[in-house]
Amino acid sequence: MEFFKDIAQVSYEGPESKNPFSFKFYNPEEVVEGKKMKDHLRFSVAFWHTFTGDGRDMFGAPAFDRPWDKYEDPLDRSFARVDALFEFCEKLNLEFFCFHDRDIAPEGVTLRETNKLLDKVVGYIKDRMKGSNLKLLWGTANLFSNPVYSQGAATSPFPEIFARAAAQVKKALEITKELDGQGYVFWGGREGYETLLNTNMELELRNLAHFLKMAVEYAQKIGFNGQLLIEPKPKEPTKHQYDFDVANSLAFLKTYGLDSHFKFNIEANHSTLAGHTFVHELRYARIHGKLGSIDANQGDLLLGWDTDQFPTNIYETTLAMYEVIKAGGFTKGGLNFDAKVRRSSFKLQDLVIAHIVGMDTFALGFKVAYRMWKDQVLEKFIEDRYRGYSEGIGKKIASGETSFEELESLVIDKDEFVLHSGQQEYLESLLNQYLFTVVKG
Amino acid sequence: MEFFKDIAQVSYEGPESKNPFSFKFYNPEEVVEGKKMKDHLRFSVAFWHTFTGDGRDMFGAPAFDRPWDKYEDPLDRSFARVDALFEFCEKLNLEFFCFHDRDIAPEGVTLRETNKLLDKVVGYIKDRMKGSNLKLLWGTANLFSNPVYSQGAATSPFPEIFARAAAQVKKALEITKELDGQGYVFWGGREGYETLLNTNMELELRNLAHFLKMAVEYAQKIGFNGQLLIEPKPKEPTKHQYDFDVANSLAFLKTYGLDSHFKFNIEANHSTLAGHTFVHELRYARIHGKLGSIDANQGDLLLGWDTDQFPTNIYETTLAMYEVIKAGGFTKGGLNFDAKVRRSSFKLQDLVIAHIVGMDTFALGFKVAYRMWKDQVLEKFIEDRYRGYSEGIGKKIASGETSFEELESLVIDKDEFVLHSGQQEYLESLLNQYLFTVVKG
Amino acid sequence: MEFFKDIAQVSYEGPESKNPFSFKFYNPEEVVEGKKMKDHLRFSVAFWHTFTGDGRDMFGAPAFDRPWDKYEDPLDRSFARVDALFEFCEKLNLEFFCFHDRDIAPEGVTLRETNKLLDKVVGYIKDRMKGSNLKLLWGTANLFSNPVYSQGAATSPFPEIFARAAAQVKKALEITKELDGQGYVFWGGREGYETLLNTNMELELRNLAHFLKMAVEYAQKIGFNGQLLIEPKPKEPTKHQYDFDVANSLAFLKTYGLDSHFKFNIEANHSTLAGHTFVHELRYARIHGKLGSIDANQGDLLLGWDTDQFPTNIYETTLAMYEVIKAGGFTKGGLNFDAKVRRSSFKLQDLVIAHIVGMDTFALGFKVAYRMWKDQVLEKFIEDRYRGYSEGIGKKIASGETSFEELESLVIDKDEFVLHSGQQEYLESLLNQYLFTVVKG
Amino acid sequence: MEFFKDIAQVSYEGPESKNPFSFKFYNPEEVVEGKKMKDHLRFSVAFWHTFTGDGRDMFGAPAFDRPWDKYEDPLDRSFARVDALFEFCEKLNLEFFCFHDRDIAPEGVTLRETNKLLDKVVGYIKDRMKGSNLKLLWGTANLFSNPVYSQGAATSPFPEIFARAAAQVKKALEITKELDGQGYVFWGGREGYETLLNTNMELELRNLAHFLKMAVEYAQKIGFNGQLLIEPKPKEPTKHQYDFDVANSLAFLKTYGLDSHFKFNIEANHSTLAGHTFVHELRYARIHGKLGSIDANQGDLLLGWDTDQFPTNIYETTLAMYEVIKAGGFTKGGLNFDAKVRRSSFKLQDLVIAHIVGMDTFALGFKVAYRMWKDQVLEKFIEDRYRGYSEGIGKKIASGETSFEELESLVIDKDEFVLHSGQQEYLESLLNQYLFTVVKG
Repeated sequence: MEFFKDIAQVSYEGPESKNPFSFKFYNPEEVVEGKKMKDHLRFSVAFWHTFTGDGRDMFGAPAFDRPWDKYEDPLDRSFARVDALFEFCEKLNLEFFCFHDRDIAPEGVTLRETNKLLDKVVGYIKDRMKGSNLKLLWGTANLFSNPVYSQGAATSPFPEIFARAAAQVKKALEITKELDGQGYVFWGGREGYETLLNTNMELELRNLAHFLKMAVEYAQKIGFNGQLLIEPKPKEPTKHQYDFDVANSLAFLKTYGLDSHFKFNIEANHSTLAGHTFVHELRYARIHGKLGSIDANQGDLLLGWDTDQFPTNIYETTLAMYEVIKAGGFTKGGLNFDAKVRRSSFKLQDLVIAHIVGMDTFALGFKVAYRMWKDQVLEKFIEDRYRGYSEGIGKKIASGETSFEELESLVIDKDEFVLHSGQQEYLESLLNQYLFTVVKG
Repeated sequence: MEFFKDIAQVSYEGPESKNPFSFKFYNPEEVVEGKKMKDHLRFSVAFWHTFTGDGRDMFGAPAFDRPWDKYEDPLDRSFARVDALFEFCEKLNLEFFCFHDRDIAPEGVTLRETNKLLDKVVGYIKDRMKGSNLKLLWGTANLFSNPVYSQGAATSPFPEIFARAAAQVKKALEITKELDGQGYVFWGGREGYETLLNTNMELELRNLAHFLKMAVEYAQKIGFNGQLLIEPKPKEPTKHQYDFDVANSLAFLKTYGLDSHFKFNIEANHSTLAGHTFVHELRYARIHGKLGSIDANQGDLLLGWDTDQFPTNIYETTLAMYEVIKAGGFTKGGLNFDAKVRRSSFKLQDLVIAHIVGMDTFALGFKVAYRMWKDQVLEKFIEDRYRGYSEGIGKKIASGETSFEELESLVIDKDEFVLHSGQQEYLESLLNQYLFTVVKG
Repeated sequence: MEFFKDIAQVSYEGPESKNPFSFKFYNPEEVVEGKKMKDHLRFSVAFWHTFTGDGRDMFGAPAFDRPWDKYEDPLDRSFARVDALFEFCEKLNLEFFCFHDRDIAPEGVTLRETNKLLDKVVGYIKDRMKGSNLKLLWGTANLFSNPVYSQGAATSPFPEIFARAAAQVKKALEITKELDGQGYVFWGGREGYETLLNTNMELELRNLAHFLKMAVEYAQKIGFNGQLLIEPKPKEPTKHQYDFDVANSLAFLKTYGLDSHFKFNIEANHSTLAGHTFVHELRYARIHGKLGSIDANQGDLLLGWDTDQFPTNIYETTLAMYEVIKAGGFTKGGLNFDAKVRRSSFKLQDLVIAHIVGMDTFALGFKVAYRMWKDQVLEKFIEDRYRGYSEGIGKKIASGETSFEELESLVIDKDEFVLHSGQQEYLESLLNQYLFTVVKG
Repeated sequence: MEFFKDIAQVSYEGPESKNPFSFKFYNPEEVVEGKKMKDHLRFSVAFWHTFTGDGRDMFGAPAFDRPWDKYEDPLDRSFARVDALFEFCEKLNLEFFCFHDRDIAPEGVTLRETNKLLDKVVGYIKDRMKGSNLKLLWGTANLFSNPVYSQGAATSPFPEIFARAAAQVKKALEITKELDGQGYVFWGGREGYETLLNTNMELELRNLAHFLKMAVEYAQKIGFNGQLLIEPKPKEPTKHQYDFDVANSLAFLKTYGLDSHFKFNIEANHSTLAGHTFVHELRYARIHGKLGSIDANQGDLLLGWDTDQFPTNIYETTLAMYEVIKAGGFTKGGLNFDAKVRRSSFKLQDLVIAHIVGMDTFALGFKVAYRMWKDQVLEKFIEDRYRGYSEGIGKKIASGETSFEELESLVIDKDEFVLHSGQQEYLESLLNQYLFTVVKG
């Protein structure tokens, strides 16, 4: 069945096009620095939002009436959603997708039954992938929707629930390998607490570490070579989640000797919920060698929950792509649209347009970032600003070869210290100049 | 000169007293578990807020007219403030104080001159300490007020500023040792950034690590045995500070191999600015063996800046003291009132009453916490909740001796999983019962 | 059928009772100032949270397994929920309840069918009320769950939806009258916008005013004498809701000449989401003669969404009840627990305990507030602070009988202005003293 | 004396210019719709930030070393600052400025003395204005810096302080008239409370109303024809300010019958501190006929205080200018840069560049907004979306000519309701297309 039959193949028509179903800034085949745009950006669709999402919110019933959800039989519905995925990605030139185990297949009464259902859908996906460009960016297990996880999964107070979560991740790793996934993500949506009054944080964190260690071992055992990724989020659904932000998660990984096995999947909206900018989290991960992949979306900074909007702010995408460029580009990661159309954008057309604006926004951001990088304007500014650390006492400081005594002797009798302006307004002006002239050429 | 001559010695008069200048809940000499209340609580006055603070805010000029600030000569003013400190602490049974180098003495043109002035005041303090119970809880260096630090101190782009900060900390460590301080605090008020556009975060963090390493070495060299402490704060004055919260700081310390040398000085208001509860930060530090000392104040969760109010919320102090009790009590740390009277509370009487309410609030919190601890009500609840991890497969999980395969085999055919209620409302009710009955006896 | 058969009648056992199913502070029959506690407090249960709520959240499936939801037939389920309501309220001495039209009865295909179903349930409730003390505090219409309202109800861009909302409110007013409701609430959960890009705010606000005007007219026409109430909330589910806070709503009512017909139903959690304290909203409504009723719950100020927790913070309830006392007590309003048990508190026992802690917290708050009021400690302080306005030029200012020229003449040559301390810390200390001694008696 | 002698006259050089001291997007003389850009935008410099600001923050001493502050004598310093103002505005083509009374002149011991000093400076400004294009956008009185206002000015508990504030506003109105100011602003920086425990909100609000009424009367009396403006801000410096946002202020004005005399001066950063977008506040004011003037700056949504940054975000300026265009453009208002350079941007060059980026950002925003307006793309979309209200029952709803009964009759038997998509993502995409193609032409 064809679901998007009213929508033609989406292609690049340039910034002046009046066709909403065209790319204005994203030209997948355009070559930048010897690589196609699509290979720089590695866009991915999120199965859950786009094919399973129903438009429900905390105050409202499902609002989307998807044609693939017409099927009575749950398994038929799953197959239809997979069909929709492939059709959608082809129309939009999307070459990656991501999923949770429970998005793609229905649950049975036992895990064994559930796994069988999962295998059927995975088999179907695998078949469909053969004649397609579509690849799996990463897989993950949903350890938060089922009420058995209401008090945590790997941090549940109940060993049976821990075991159930383990079994679920075991299977999720297997199917991610089966589908040749380039990564596997851990998002601890219930790994945290509602109140400290009833929480043994120490035991929960240690158990979480044991859980991840077993996951590493099992991934190695089955020969899964994808990148393991932690996705930080500070709160929601729980009051406090242990993977609060990149640094919190890094502290955890280091405490339990797990840091060499993981990188981070950084989400824009999760960053701001933690009180950081998106670019801060990317920068922090990058300089620690931990920038793995990106959940490309956008939050509303005046709202305190995960709005998961499609990214449309080019300031954000430019600064984000600048970090990706500095990190040497994506290897196993990509830009996954962990984003959902607004509840009032309930048409299939809205799904398509939302992805277009997300892709255009990142493509334009990439182009601006690339031009800034090529011109080395920020790099030169920063090099100049910190030049003092490349020679003399600055160099000794930067390499850790001096002492308080030596440093004191240099300044104890100085009566003036010279600073240079940080020139923030100039740099912001420069960024605007890059942003608002790049399209011309 | 006597500054608080209108105020009599403050003593315990019990909860029904109508005398504002009496303790209602804090009885310093009362013995709990073989130790006096004052030794459990180790209250400390913050020199900067109480004796240097002038009531200025971002929109308003100094509003306090302190008698000790009448002196024209800066050094005389410093001596007068020290006199005020000793008088104040005696009247209030306060046995500790904390200071920044620049609070207690004026600056000269060069650091050498400044150090000389500092030595004079330190000598004076030392003399006054001889006939007094007053001790130094911790010292610190002010690396944020002087405009030379406007772009950072240990993270300045300019080596000379880094050196200046080093020289200042060197001296601050020396005087803290001289005054037998039980700790030394690093608060990185400008160690962060205003914009990432002009920031080399990698170099700044590495330099900061070198700085702290030199501090550790110098402290060891001069035989300073106090506890070194990091005080996290997420933002303000800078847009983003590296020591964002306890976990961020721990990640940093671990990255640079510094974690064995530091504990944390945790401030209530800084915790909430970082999006955590105060008790969360204490709990997190405690289970990592890093709970060093406390900056006892209170923020306004509807305001986005450091209001540094005197603590009056007994929920907060009860939960905080519960963590301190579980940590085995303070060793080198204490409860430092990093708190300031409101700008409209400009009288000397307000200074006294503000400390009284702070001390009463923590004393009552301690009593409630201690009774809960003695009754083991929370401990038993938690032990019961996590009982599954003390035997069978739960024990194997908790000790890291199982695998995904073993765990899967246990649950793959289960069709029901049993959870127990988290009973948050019951525990909150229990807390209220403890809070509102403890005074009776 | 008996749903709470394991739970005995809940009664007052005093603060030392170890029985979780007893009141510690709330003694319904205790007489204060000639009126029973229960008549001061007028507690109400929220049908939706307690009998319809299923524990779902944005990341999780329903987690509650209520015995009254076992019935296959929707109407039977509705009757069972009503039975549960009456049993629950009897056990807990709750004398009021509140509902939305859609909580209590299922929907049919057309409104006519839906209304018939509603009539059946309303008839059943009315019958059950005859042999019971249970009364209706207020009714309301759910204009937010059904996807037809996803773009607004009275502010929908589509007249048919506006008409549908009107028809629904018409019926809800009728049944509220039928059940002798003391009030009727308007909560505009979708009356706002997701983005200004597609919004005609002017037309939407005017339509909303027309809607409310028609509601007033219809209420008068059918002889409904209950109080009409607006319930402000700033955001969630929409990005921005027009009834942002009490003042925003008041501006709206005044702009359209509607203010004489409405008071406010003020919710604690909505207040803090708007950046105000709960007591601020109560105070503001009170001094404008608009304090109608209260949605008694508690938010988490570190979270950005409506957590609707049961109220357990006695500071909040004391200050809230102080405003109610100053307003002369409730007339047609009451304390409705618009609160839900945590998702992990999934047992029926938790429902009971949660209401107990809510009632105890407000009862204790009331007692403390009442004692403060009786002692007039705050009143006298404030009277004293503003005494200047009771005589001389102050009196002329307060009655609007002076001019800039006269005022200037009084101060133009003054060289000193005397202020008195605001004594915030003293007042906070006093509040603590009241809080922590009231239980004694 | 020439202060900016190293800086040449700033002129338009186009988006590709590498000269930081040139306009990239703002061409003052360019004609749009028959009016010059400079007359559309009416840029104004804020005297306080640019000429009085010293770079102090809550944790740091003054960091700016302005040449005009070299003068020992306060009055000489004031004259020098005025000289700097005129020189700066000429170099930057700025045709308006704004001031507080206390920015421009020093204080004497009494108000009479202060007024004399003020008159001297005002006289000097008036002289300088004769040979210049510089005009006064608005004046205001600083009722927040002096500690006498620490507990409020028009809401002070002390009548003498109220009188002092009145005298100050009287004079400020006089000098604003003297300098032919086009407006006069009331920002109630201390009109609010720190704690409700000591506050008589009712009396304070009534006094504030009396104060404003006297201001209106005095303005009329002296023949001041400028627009009176309220500038809302929710908090900071006080915990809660009465003029929380536009709607709160409007409710106040309406309650006291003052609304016909005032419009609003809306600040971007104040809007977001109140939980609104900048454009929301503009839109709300506009549709109530109250959009008076704009304080053009930018906040940091992750920080909870007024950062007053120069505006650089073109999304914001585009949406803001769109509202201004819809309002028919500025009449007596303008775009006042209530913005300060970052503390580390301490050079005179930074002052210039900061204003350039602010002007460029608003100019580009205006151009984009104007093109969207000319194309009527949003207008047509919205017209279409709400088309139902232009005919039939929709028209009756929109004009308030129907009833609940009539509306019910239309829908009671309907079994389907049709909605159209809100198309938010499409509109965001369209905005990006306008933003990133406008520069080309």
